[in-house]
Amino acid sequence: MSQNAFDQKKEHILAEIQSASLDLSPKGTIDELCVPIMKLINSHKDMVTTSSCSGRLSVFVEGNKLHNDGLKSGGKGEGGKWLFVTHDRDQVRNWDHRITEPVVYNTDLGGAPLDSSTRYILYKYEPFILHVKCRDFQSASKLFNTAMSCGFRESGIGSNNIVALRVNIKLDVPIGFMDDSTGQLVFFVTQNYINIINEMTLTKYTENSKKMQELYEKIELQIVTSKEPASDKQVETKEERRVRKRKEGLLRKEAGSQQKAT
Amino acid sequence: MSQNAFDQKKEHILAEIQSASLDLSPKGTIDELCVPIMKLINSHKDMVTTSSCSGRLSVFVEGNKLHNDGLKSGGKGEGGKWLFVTHDRDQVRNWDHRITEPVVYNTDLGGAPLDSSTRYILYKYEPFILHVKCRDFQSASKLFNTAMSCGFRESGIGSNNIVALRVNIKLDVPIGFMDDSTGQLVFFVTQNYINIINEMTLTKYTENSKKMQELYEKIELQIVTSKEPASDKQVETKEERRVRKRKEGLLRKEAGSQQKAT
Repeated sequence: MSQNAFDQKKEHILAEIQSASLDLSPKGTIDELCVPIMKLINSHKDMVTTSSCSGRLSVFVEGNKLHNDGLKSGGKGEGGKWLFVTHDRDQVRNWDHRITEPVVYNTDLGGAPLDSSTRYILYKYEPFILHVKCRDFQSASKLFNTAMSCGFRESGIGSNNIVALRVNIKLDVPIGFMDDSTGQLVFFVTQNYINIINEMTLTKYTENSKKMQELYEKIELQIVTSKEPASDKQVETKEERRVRKRKEGLLRKEAGSQQKAT
Repeated sequence: MSQNAFDQKKEHILAEIQSASLDLSPKGTIDELCVPIMKLINSHKDMVTTSSCSGRLSVFVEGNKLHNDGLKSGGKGEGGKWLFVTHDRDQVRNWDHRITEPVVYNTDLGGAPLDSSTRYILYKYEPFILHVKCRDFQSASKLFNTAMSCGFRESGIGSNNIVALRVNIKLDVPIGFMDDSTGQLVFFVTQNYINIINEMTLTKYTENSKKMQELYEKIELQIVTSKEPASDKQVETKEERRVRKRKEGLLRKEAGSQQKAT
């Protein structure tokens, strides 16, 4: 029996998930918090996960910006490096005691000039993200709509029916800089402040787990175990359609402006 | 001559952009930095912008979390409020001198306990975002691909062929909290730190403008003035297809892992 392209690709990807040995990310393996939702999605014949992160705290030193177009900040750049990365909430408190590089605290900055070439140290919490390749646009749309309906509002469908499931739970905090004249890492916030953002990060982990669970349940209910026909739309008579269209027109009028700005 | 649904909707939306009187966002009008790219996109017969933000700095006090499910942070909640919002880079420096609420600086926190109910004060830079309704999936895909090709990597196609154009340039920094026992805003960072993140924000504005310009140029070149036929795909003979498929198969083999984790 011959397979179509999607099925072939899915089989290939699932074999890789099993081995998970070629992973290029700093963590190196698929983090276990993603496994349940990945298994759920992969149990559906029209979907296969292609990349995942369960949410993580990272502390990162930006690379050399002069080699990096002079403006780009926040990127890895040349010489950028991770001081710390974890998917595990139990590793959040006291992460700064566990990094190997020596750190100096200096909230006065002792005359060190900061400018657009400064290599900042960034403390980031990034939430769960999952990419799912779907067999066709219809299954991609269904997954997208399910995600949107439980708050994954930055989700989107991309090329090749790959859906990115994204939620907005984040921190992105500059906590210091690399003093290139001394080679030292300087934190320009206090230890107290680090403790505060660590606690906030723990709240983000909790919030994130809750959203992952919510998404799991919705996908299970609305997609995996759904007994609905393939199409969401019920058959509508011409008269029903006329009435609906008229209603929608009235609703649009009532709603007024469609154009939003922030 | 009768119009189809997309054309009707577009006409309606353009009329609203003209008046821009019903806007619900804190700023209240479409910010002028968006106008060039909006005009460009709206000049295309298959596209119309439905919401926009050119990028902004905001400082926000979270609402009461006890009314807000106990966990949700970062949201408006009940009693949340904006201390400051601007799309204008000239308003960034010294924003803290221009807010009306009195602020106390206290990096020691003087015994004030912070916990999961703490209403934090959040300093955020959010980049340009634009939503564009397209006539059909083909035009939505074209816009999506153009955006992805110039670094708008969090873009996605949503329901009704609405494309969200998103780029990852941000700051999301807790700078203090609302002390509910005294009704005071307490900043737990130093004035020096506020100055540092203000300067970083100015760099973000610059980076953001550059990305907006890049997107403008790509859309102009690849979509608006493009002389290509409606379909991107060139006609391919059976033999050409066989050769391409074989090449793609080899490339897939060479590429190895498709599964990524972070």
